[in-house]
Amino acid sequence: MIIFETIQEAHDRIRPYIHRTAVLTNQTINDRAGADLFFKCENFQKIGAFKARGGLNAVLQVAQNREGEAITTHSSGNHAQAVAFAARQVGMPAYIVMPRTAPQVKKEAVLGYGAEVIECEPTLEAREAGVREVMARTGAVLVHPFDDDRVIAGQATAAKELIEDAGEDRPFDVILAPVGGGGLLSGTALTTHYMSPTTRVIAGEPEGAADAILSFQSGRVEKAPYINTIADGLMTSLSERTLAIIRSHVADILTVSDAEIIGAMRLVWERMKIVIEPSSAVPLAVVLKHKDRFAGQKIGIIITGGNVDLGKLPF
Amino acid sequence: MIIFETIQEAHDRIRPYIHRTAVLTNQTINDRAGADLFFKCENFQKIGAFKARGGLNAVLQVAQNREGEAITTHSSGNHAQAVAFAARQVGMPAYIVMPRTAPQVKKEAVLGYGAEVIECEPTLEAREAGVREVMARTGAVLVHPFDDDRVIAGQATAAKELIEDAGEDRPFDVILAPVGGGGLLSGTALTTHYMSPTTRVIAGEPEGAADAILSFQSGRVEKAPYINTIADGLMTSLSERTLAIIRSHVADILTVSDAEIIGAMRLVWERMKIVIEPSSAVPLAVVLKHKDRFAGQKIGIIITGGNVDLGKLPF
Repeated sequence: MIIFETIQEAHDRIRPYIHRTAVLTNQTINDRAGADLFFKCENFQKIGAFKARGGLNAVLQVAQNREGEAITTHSSGNHAQAVAFAARQVGMPAYIVMPRTAPQVKKEAVLGYGAEVIECEPTLEAREAGVREVMARTGAVLVHPFDDDRVIAGQATAAKELIEDAGEDRPFDVILAPVGGGGLLSGTALTTHYMSPTTRVIAGEPEGAADAILSFQSGRVEKAPYINTIADGLMTSLSERTLAIIRSHVADILTVSDAEIIGAMRLVWERMKIVIEPSSAVPLAVVLKHKDRFAGQKIGIIITGGNVDLGKLPF
Repeated sequence: MIIFETIQEAHDRIRPYIHRTAVLTNQTINDRAGADLFFKCENFQKIGAFKARGGLNAVLQVAQNREGEAITTHSSGNHAQAVAFAARQVGMPAYIVMPRTAPQVKKEAVLGYGAEVIECEPTLEAREAGVREVMARTGAVLVHPFDDDRVIAGQATAAKELIEDAGEDRPFDVILAPVGGGGLLSGTALTTHYMSPTTRVIAGEPEGAADAILSFQSGRVEKAPYINTIADGLMTSLSERTLAIIRSHVADILTVSDAEIIGAMRLVWERMKIVIEPSSAVPLAVVLKHKDRFAGQKIGIIITGGNVDLGKLPF
């Protein structure tokens, strides 16, 4: 059970290791959207993404409680770097199971934090088997990318800073976050529920990974009808844990196409002069798609990360 | 004669219209350079470049002193947008002479600020003739991109903010700026001379537009041996005015290749997650090329702008 004190303690725990990232605004984008947008820039976070928060909050507790000899996880994305980075901070070995198809640059980033990369076949079964083998062999503790209260409480600190820095004089009408496995969305929804109860939390999801909207409607963890999106951080399905929090505290989930995601991403690069990854552009794409719904509102948006391959841009 | 009060007055004059842009640091780039770097992020400035400062300082004085009925300049780059933007702030018509070969996106940006674009052949003679024709026809006052004390005093305010925000407890050893026509470099050198006299000012220049280094050595305004560089904001030669200031207050000019510029630009995009134009990467390229010279020093770098065509990136 994540209460407000859990999030406050997480924030105190990770504060020495993270950046308090900027909250930026842009007049041109406000004019385009017809609303007041506040962007919480986790692309400027350590490892280039909010995932540093959850990884640190879990790993610091594993180290403090001496729960194991090492840390392990499976991820091809930002969570792999987050766990490797966090393990280095506490001086524990980290074993990251990554599909052999993961980009070389991501493997090198993990290696750069001193972690060991264990390659596996690119299936969920192979990844989970890889983690079990590591745990048996090394005594490592698993830090799941999102199905973990400590990870969720860490991710919740991004919205906490956003509300503290830009949402106190006049509360946000809406806070938007993208949804993949639901760790960030769950944390954002809990923080907002505790700190700014009049604010609605709305999620953005790619049409090409539309599982959360189905699960939100049915109340069961559903699979996406198909997976085909540029938003490579949002391909995962929810867990029972994240679905329960999302059903309790999220007002709506809205989907956008890859063309809408790329358009919003380009707008941010051109006008705000910041590098964001496609997943980060999903909430802005939602606002631009549903202007009537958001007209005149004060809106917080979590920019999740900025880790893109500059050699493979969609424009 | 630009004294410190001139720069202070310029800053007071333009402050309501500009952003006080962030000064950013990055641990990875510091480690790579072996020095402490502070980036003054004028890519976040109005119109996406420091040129808004000089354009505003000149145009606001033209308007206040009723020196003419309109504003004109010739530019294919950021100064065109700066003058158009500044003229809009004071409600004066602006006539921007642009070579017909200038990118459509730049013409549209100028038109977006309500200015009139007058196309001409892409030669300096045609540009100057276009401006003379506008002045005769409309009573417009010319705001030159750099050969103008009011423009130089405006550009000088970027270094003023950098020193105020990051250079007071421990002064900078060096402040670096790129050099094209020398407006920014002159202003940076004057500000630093007045506010932080122990700090050396060093310029970075592309090998493919190496006129300033020749002029700096000979004491006369020289042409570059050839013009061929990705740093499209730095192709201009100095004027007598900027050369005189630079010879008095700049310690050195160092050149870098386009490959070095692109490498530094990519490093900033990947690690700092900000969009900068090639000209902005020249000072960092200088630091990375001459690590021994800058080792352990506290270095300020003016990031000049972030206006790039995302469809034509060099990586």
